[in-house]
Amino acid sequence: MASVLVVGSVALDTVITPTGEVKDVLGGSASYFSYAASFFTSVKLVAVVGEDFSQEYIDLLRSRNIDLGGLRVERGKTFRWGGRYRGDMSVAETLYTDLNVFENFSPDIPDEYKRSEYLFLANIDPELQLNILNQMEKPKLVACDTMNYWINNEWDALMEIIKRVDVLIVNDAEVRAIGGETNLISAASRILCLGPKAIIIKKGEHGAMLFREDCFFYSPAYPLPKVVDPTGAGDSFAGGFMGYMAKTEGNNIQRAIVYGNAMGSFCVEDFGLRRFQILNNGEIEERFKEFQQMVSF
Amino acid sequence: MASVLVVGSVALDTVITPTGEVKDVLGGSASYFSYAASFFTSVKLVAVVGEDFSQEYIDLLRSRNIDLGGLRVERGKTFRWGGRYRGDMSVAETLYTDLNVFENFSPDIPDEYKRSEYLFLANIDPELQLNILNQMEKPKLVACDTMNYWINNEWDALMEIIKRVDVLIVNDAEVRAIGGETNLISAASRILCLGPKAIIIKKGEHGAMLFREDCFFYSPAYPLPKVVDPTGAGDSFAGGFMGYMAKTEGNNIQRAIVYGNAMGSFCVEDFGLRRFQILNNGEIEERFKEFQQMVSF
Repeated sequence: MASVLVVGSVALDTVITPTGEVKDVLGGSASYFSYAASFFTSVKLVAVVGEDFSQEYIDLLRSRNIDLGGLRVERGKTFRWGGRYRGDMSVAETLYTDLNVFENFSPDIPDEYKRSEYLFLANIDPELQLNILNQMEKPKLVACDTMNYWINNEWDALMEIIKRVDVLIVNDAEVRAIGGETNLISAASRILCLGPKAIIIKKGEHGAMLFREDCFFYSPAYPLPKVVDPTGAGDSFAGGFMGYMAKTEGNNIQRAIVYGNAMGSFCVEDFGLRRFQILNNGEIEERFKEFQQMVSF
Repeated sequence: MASVLVVGSVALDTVITPTGEVKDVLGGSASYFSYAASFFTSVKLVAVVGEDFSQEYIDLLRSRNIDLGGLRVERGKTFRWGGRYRGDMSVAETLYTDLNVFENFSPDIPDEYKRSEYLFLANIDPELQLNILNQMEKPKLVACDTMNYWINNEWDALMEIIKRVDVLIVNDAEVRAIGGETNLISAASRILCLGPKAIIIKKGEHGAMLFREDCFFYSPAYPLPKVVDPTGAGDSFAGGFMGYMAKTEGNNIQRAIVYGNAMGSFCVEDFGLRRFQILNNGEIEERFKEFQQMVSF
C-alpha cells in the first residue's frame, strides 16, 4: 500500500447555501483531498497556513493520520474564501478571495516526501505545479487539477504540466475550454493528444467520466435527495480516487473513480468536512455497492 | 412478443444546426418513436397528417412494417415545425409551429388496436392522452411523455394521466417542474407518490435515470464526438425502451432503458430519420455491448 502526497490550499471557508451557512470552517483543496484520501491510505500534505490557523483544525487533520510535515505556518493570515450557492447549486458565486499567506505559496517538497509515488497537484498555478513536479523523484502516478483562471492566464505552463501528468482531473467546462470544442467527447479526445494518459471529467450531479485511449468509463453521481454544500466535492472525488489508486497500487482505475464519486457524494451531504468527520469505512463500502447496483443490467 | 401502439404527432420538420439544415423532413414524436421501436417489435401508429403528406414518407414507415391503419389523412396541411440549435445543442429554439391538421387531433383508436398491451402516449394534450387511455382495454404497460406547456396549462388533466400511467418518460426540466423541487432526485420521489410505478428521466448528453420505489438505475449517454441533430432523440429513446419492453414482455426495465439510450444515440448522429434508415440490428447489439463495457468496474 503506497501513500499519497497532495500539494494545494488549506483555507478557511465561509459558505452560504439555500439550507444554511458556515463561517471560517476548514476548507481548501488539500484539506478536502487529504481527508477523503485518508479513508484509503496514508496521506502527506504540503500547504501553507497563517498564524491564525486554529490548533483544532491541525488536530482534526492529525486525527486522520495525515502527515503535516509539509504544512508551513507563515506570518500572516490563512487563505480565506467566501462563496454562495443558489438554486440547484451547480455554480459557486465567489463573495471574496483573500489569498493572504497563500499568495506567496512556493513549496519546497520535504526530502522525505520526494520519493512519494502518488502525487496530486491540486488547483494551483501551473508554474508551481511544474516546480513541484521537478522536485519529485520518479512518481508512479501524477494527477492534477486546474481552473479557468489558469486556462486563460497561464496557457503555456498549463500545457507543459498537462503534458507531464498521468491523469488530468477537471470539470466539464474546463475540458471544453482546454480542448477548444463545445462537444465534451471531442474536447476530451483533443486533450488526450496533448500528453496525459487519462482524463477524468467531474460533472457534478451528472457523475464522472474517464477517457483513455483504450477505454471510456462512466460513473453516475450518487442520487442525493438533498445537497447541503457542494464545496470540496471535486477535491474529495480526487482524494477518493488517488487514495484508492495508492492503496491498490493502481490496479483498477474504474473502481478508483467509483470510490471518488462515493467520497464526493458524502462530502456534499453536509457543510465543510462535517460528513467526513462521522464517516466510517463500512459506509463507504456500502455506497460502493450501491454504485454497482445502480448501473447493473 | 407483443406489439406496441403509439399515439402522437407526425410532422414535417425544418431544422437548422451548426452542422447543416434540412427542410420539411419526416418528424414528429410518433414518427421517431415508431421507427425506433420497429427495430424491436411490430408497431401500430395513430396520428394525423394532411393531404400534402408525401407518399415517400408513407412508404418509408411501411418499409419498417409499421401498421398505419391508425394514420388519418385529413383535409389541410400536415403539422410543421421549424427549429434551430446552437452551441452545445442542448436547447431547441422554435422558429415556427404550424399545427395545421394536428390542431384538431382527437383520435378514435381503431377497434383492432384497443387490445394493444403496450401503449405510448407521446407528448400531446393530457386531455387527449386520457381520452385515448379510456378507449383501451386493459393495456399491460402504459407510458407517457409531456412538456412544459401542458405542465403550465393543463395541470389537472396532467395529474390525472400521471396517476394512471405505469411509466412517465420526461426530461429533467419537466421532472423539476412537475415535482416542484430544484433537486432532481427529490422531485422524482415526489412524482412517484402521484401514482406512476416508474419515472424515467431523459437527461440528453447526461444519460437517463430510472426511479422506482424499489430501485434506482442510471444509464449514461453514449459518448458521441459529434451530434448532428438532437431532434427526436427523446422519442427515439422512448421507442427503443417501449419496443424492447413489448418484445420481451417487460422482463427487464433496465435493459430496455439501455436500448432506449442506444436508439437515442443513433438518432442524433444525422438529421431526421437518416441514421435509422441505414441502421441494422447488429449495430444496435454492438452498441448495447459498449454500454455494458462503459459502466463495468
